[in-house]
Amino acid sequence: MTGSIYGNSFTITTWGESHGAAIGVVIDGCPAGLPLTEDHIQTFLNRRKPGQSKYTTARQESDRAEILSGVFEGRTTGTPISLMVRNMDQRSRDYGQIKDCFRPGHADYTFHEKYGFRDYRGGGRTSGRETIGRVAAGAVASLLLENLGIHITAYTKSIGSIVIPNESYRYEEIYENPLYMPNNAYARDAALYLEECIKSQDSSGGVIECIIEGMPAGVGEPVFRKLDACLAQAVMSVGAVKGVEIGDGFQVSRAKGSTNNDPFYEENGQILKRSNHSGGTLGGLSDGGRVVLRAAVKPTPSISAEQETVDIHGQNTHIAITGRHDPVIVPRAVVVVESMAALTVADLLMDNMSAKIEYLQKIYLKKN
Amino acid sequence: MTGSIYGNSFTITTWGESHGAAIGVVIDGCPAGLPLTEDHIQTFLNRRKPGQSKYTTARQESDRAEILSGVFEGRTTGTPISLMVRNMDQRSRDYGQIKDCFRPGHADYTFHEKYGFRDYRGGGRTSGRETIGRVAAGAVASLLLENLGIHITAYTKSIGSIVIPNESYRYEEIYENPLYMPNNAYARDAALYLEECIKSQDSSGGVIECIIEGMPAGVGEPVFRKLDACLAQAVMSVGAVKGVEIGDGFQVSRAKGSTNNDPFYEENGQILKRSNHSGGTLGGLSDGGRVVLRAAVKPTPSISAEQETVDIHGQNTHIAITGRHDPVIVPRAVVVVESMAALTVADLLMDNMSAKIEYLQKIYLKKN
Amino acid sequence: MTGSIYGNSFTITTWGESHGAAIGVVIDGCPAGLPLTEDHIQTFLNRRKPGQSKYTTARQESDRAEILSGVFEGRTTGTPISLMVRNMDQRSRDYGQIKDCFRPGHADYTFHEKYGFRDYRGGGRTSGRETIGRVAAGAVASLLLENLGIHITAYTKSIGSIVIPNESYRYEEIYENPLYMPNNAYARDAALYLEECIKSQDSSGGVIECIIEGMPAGVGEPVFRKLDACLAQAVMSVGAVKGVEIGDGFQVSRAKGSTNNDPFYEENGQILKRSNHSGGTLGGLSDGGRVVLRAAVKPTPSISAEQETVDIHGQNTHIAITGRHDPVIVPRAVVVVESMAALTVADLLMDNMSAKIEYLQKIYLKKN
Amino acid sequence: MTGSIYGNSFTITTWGESHGAAIGVVIDGCPAGLPLTEDHIQTFLNRRKPGQSKYTTARQESDRAEILSGVFEGRTTGTPISLMVRNMDQRSRDYGQIKDCFRPGHADYTFHEKYGFRDYRGGGRTSGRETIGRVAAGAVASLLLENLGIHITAYTKSIGSIVIPNESYRYEEIYENPLYMPNNAYARDAALYLEECIKSQDSSGGVIECIIEGMPAGVGEPVFRKLDACLAQAVMSVGAVKGVEIGDGFQVSRAKGSTNNDPFYEENGQILKRSNHSGGTLGGLSDGGRVVLRAAVKPTPSISAEQETVDIHGQNTHIAITGRHDPVIVPRAVVVVESMAALTVADLLMDNMSAKIEYLQKIYLKKN
Repeated sequence: MTGSIYGNSFTITTWGESHGAAIGVVIDGCPAGLPLTEDHIQTFLNRRKPGQSKYTTARQESDRAEILSGVFEGRTTGTPISLMVRNMDQRSRDYGQIKDCFRPGHADYTFHEKYGFRDYRGGGRTSGRETIGRVAAGAVASLLLENLGIHITAYTKSIGSIVIPNESYRYEEIYENPLYMPNNAYARDAALYLEECIKSQDSSGGVIECIIEGMPAGVGEPVFRKLDACLAQAVMSVGAVKGVEIGDGFQVSRAKGSTNNDPFYEENGQILKRSNHSGGTLGGLSDGGRVVLRAAVKPTPSISAEQETVDIHGQNTHIAITGRHDPVIVPRAVVVVESMAALTVADLLMDNMSAKIEYLQKIYLKKN
Repeated sequence: MTGSIYGNSFTITTWGESHGAAIGVVIDGCPAGLPLTEDHIQTFLNRRKPGQSKYTTARQESDRAEILSGVFEGRTTGTPISLMVRNMDQRSRDYGQIKDCFRPGHADYTFHEKYGFRDYRGGGRTSGRETIGRVAAGAVASLLLENLGIHITAYTKSIGSIVIPNESYRYEEIYENPLYMPNNAYARDAALYLEECIKSQDSSGGVIECIIEGMPAGVGEPVFRKLDACLAQAVMSVGAVKGVEIGDGFQVSRAKGSTNNDPFYEENGQILKRSNHSGGTLGGLSDGGRVVLRAAVKPTPSISAEQETVDIHGQNTHIAITGRHDPVIVPRAVVVVESMAALTVADLLMDNMSAKIEYLQKIYLKKN
Repeated sequence: MTGSIYGNSFTITTWGESHGAAIGVVIDGCPAGLPLTEDHIQTFLNRRKPGQSKYTTARQESDRAEILSGVFEGRTTGTPISLMVRNMDQRSRDYGQIKDCFRPGHADYTFHEKYGFRDYRGGGRTSGRETIGRVAAGAVASLLLENLGIHITAYTKSIGSIVIPNESYRYEEIYENPLYMPNNAYARDAALYLEECIKSQDSSGGVIECIIEGMPAGVGEPVFRKLDACLAQAVMSVGAVKGVEIGDGFQVSRAKGSTNNDPFYEENGQILKRSNHSGGTLGGLSDGGRVVLRAAVKPTPSISAEQETVDIHGQNTHIAITGRHDPVIVPRAVVVVESMAALTVADLLMDNMSAKIEYLQKIYLKKN
Repeated sequence: MTGSIYGNSFTITTWGESHGAAIGVVIDGCPAGLPLTEDHIQTFLNRRKPGQSKYTTARQESDRAEILSGVFEGRTTGTPISLMVRNMDQRSRDYGQIKDCFRPGHADYTFHEKYGFRDYRGGGRTSGRETIGRVAAGAVASLLLENLGIHITAYTKSIGSIVIPNESYRYEEIYENPLYMPNNAYARDAALYLEECIKSQDSSGGVIECIIEGMPAGVGEPVFRKLDACLAQAVMSVGAVKGVEIGDGFQVSRAKGSTNNDPFYEENGQILKRSNHSGGTLGGLSDGGRVVLRAAVKPTPSISAEQETVDIHGQNTHIAITGRHDPVIVPRAVVVVESMAALTVADLLMDNMSAKIEYLQKIYLKKN
């Protein structure tokens, strides 16, 4: 079955393995007339690139995106946009224990069970490099949203127990520190914590937050394709994410209705909310408020410390993952979460275009 | 667009409004040969029925499911199974403020924005009665899973701040208390808390936990249709759910790799895990362990206390929701979460059947 | 898998067996605000009803459509529209040979092979009654199209060797004869031919033609979801159809480019074509001309004459189909073909709404 | 919307323009364990390559397929297979009238209407080169089918009025003549006819026939995803195809039930049919007989003779398509039709795997 396709109207198909020839994505359903360049896509890819700091891998991956189709004279044509990044690190080498062992916390065992064998080089399809296709496509979706007045921002809310409280957010500092945290001071504390993790051959988890501004009300489809439900799938599909919440999220379980409901009020002809516990969705449709979602990211499963495991022949053994590894996945996953949110919103905006007969008449009767 | 369809291979389409003629679901893709009766479906529907206790609404809804197609001589035929529940409470009455006001915490405003108008009677399509179709279909999916050795259980883990710790679970007590909690003592405490909520014209949130046992390893599709991603969409699509997590969930953000990874070991020819922080999925595929997911459920938005809001003409006003309302959504949503999990797993099991060429050969070459 | 769902944006799910409790369809994706009544749907259903003439079965089927959801105060709400027709003829009776034999030309054998057993009562899911759901949904799609200035007409072009040449079409006579032929004189000749078929315990095939007027240019999606490709699937999915063609159809195989190309010209600011060999599609998108398609319908497989066959135990035997049967399927299938065309066009019109960034801006930026 | 994706379980996404950087396809859903090489794919691509004879274009296109992902150590891994062919002919040149005029019989006008502008270089996405992705993917699907005992053959049945009657088929001669006709003598006559077309600056249509052998009975989904309906969409989606028929096709309109029905009989424990008017499908499911389908292909719209048309500014003008053009599309489209049939059958075989509960039990309970 087809797990590498996402979206209904703005659809992407990603492909590629970590150490195969290339990695890429095909976007089918991007509207015609959007100005698009390789440079724009590169801006997004650079945010997930390794080697940005000592808390992310030092491996050099150039990750240059090439537009192979769907753009003519600088604008999207409405036909599929094929984007490709050549893998640089393809030389044959010794994959050692990774070839024959199931790394704990990785998908080696589950892929082996599902398919009977696996491309073990660098994790193959299960490598974090799989997200390159998501980010390249997310760059296009984000551009589309900007043209509709919608803006998405993601950042690191916490690393380990270093959590930035909402009142300390300084959005302008997000790109000033290598951890993409909206507060440089907290980022420095987090950096110290990550130093410790590296020293103890260990790794840390964290939380990514993503906000969507400018959403028109009423976007999302009732029942199964609710805006929050689609965002949940999109974000949970990112490898290391183990939890997703919208608005107050898990805190609602301890809340009361009287405080959790957001009262409506009218001001200057606009319907607004006094608070935003809902995180911008009601009944699964956008409510005109800022959409707020959070994703819990697990610690990097690749650690240098020795771990118990089993080999592909079913024998008990031990493994220590050699080589350099990010002590934390969070910073590089920030742009991945942002991309998945952008793809989801773009898709649902298109789906929403046939919600009313007036919309169809506006497009099809207008010519007369 | 089509928000009321769920699933790829085991597909359901739900329909119906709270106070329309009926509510129902069509299952397309259920395999032929499954013994199915209306009584089996009724068992599931009875678990979401109101009036089970004073903590759920006293309204009498008979909610009898009728099988209209797809079953012949007691077995599924492989063609669409249409299930319908007639609405009893259709008499015309005064919907009062609900007709003209947007209830805080409800989808009145967002539906009005999306569609231009709405069926306001009892919430229409956004009513909790919408879940009847999910539960009826979930009963069929659960039965299918039982025939494959897979068993799903859901229950209330917490109500407000009354949280049952894992070590106090007594699964055998789940059906012994009206809150579906796996510990009768905690259930009594929760009941007292709900009494308070009722007295103060307020409502409470809670957490539902769902476990899936007997999952073969390797189920789920890589990248976007991961088992956990599909479960997240499924469960977040339930009206009041604001957060979903798998395994250790949001706690992974504070964890370290050395403790979060689950070591593999071999025993009696089986590959097992020493712990289950992953909650039964690795790389989005089932890892052979018990799948564990939790959903955060918000407090009932319908409360008797007066709230600030806006009417459909955009004027500021106030509303107090009259009539009886559940002080908590959680107990009746337990079977809904269980149903969504069953539908998701059934769907992905079918998708997984074409993972290997051997599977196709087993079915298509065997005849020779 | 899910064969009973059709459409991407305007989606229908049909269900029901010939002698089950009911037959129906759920439409998910119909825009809100369309005025819709049961009477409108009934008009379409009456056109496929048996007993309209002696060339169609004398069985009395009332086939009253009931709207169960998705319409409030006379207008569609944007949520699923559930339509149901109760089956009248459910009494238990002797199905004789049909139960144990595979009727030649019917799907008895293939369903038995696929599912292991079958609902043999009146053909079950493979009965012509399956089309009730298509026609009820087609009535809604047609109404939507009328609101966009698009009109679809279908009629009988030929029965056996009685073929109405294009120059003899009198569209105003279509509903004046029971065979839905656009020429009463040809209809009388066809009626005489059908009398012969009845006398000789035999049946006849024919051709249905369908035209779509008012199509805006550019509708259809490139490559696989071309307008003509989608129409081909839609119409070939009708039980007895064995061939589909667009415009000149199979005659193009003998044509030359110089005569088959339709020259463009400008007149009063409009781009028109001198001829319409293309049948209204170029490169799979509507070209602004009238869409013309034809479907070849096979003779009714149920005939009274004795035929050689095999029983469900694999033994050679003979069968003669008793009871009254239409000597021709064509007249009752006219509205089915028209419905499938309407459903396809409605779906592709919605899909086309995101073709250009201007369309999205027209809907989402307009509010500012 | 997403017109470049085909298939439900064995899914392909094609991309690329005639004169863009490359053309390609991503296959998502191919089972793991299938031995696959670039050479196998090349064999298929060579059959659609231009320059094979003077009746196909003399342009040299090397069209070398590269496997970018999804294959490891010679076998498919179950993850997406990305196939790419670099375009050789990308140099900037004068596109003359093609840039500013709508060529009759081409999609220039309809793409302009849909998207607002178009990539006019060599037809862009509407070029025949778009089929490279289909054929590369079709090569993989065909290989999969061979592993399941299913074999597909396509060939030219007619060119203009040169039609090979069934009784003169010599399948062994198909690859002995450049027109892929199953009779060398008819191929010589057709060649003479094409010489005439070239001399008169004209082009010819024809018919392609495709047969599928070894199909197990019961494949295809009832109602909308019937085997014949899916084949109809698949084949009609090929650019120049204007008609599709199964078995006796349009001839059924003049047939009678007594001769059109195929009697069943038992022989050596097998259920067979005395004739095959049905073309291998009953009720939309394979009936165990040979599947037979035909496609009507229109004459090449690019002709050297001058034609009336309109330019992109809406002014009347004339155009003569310069350069070499195939006088007939049919021979190069033979492998395209074969590929579309293979993709469709592979997809439906996978969908059929969940038809019975026994199939699921065979795969999921067997491990115990």
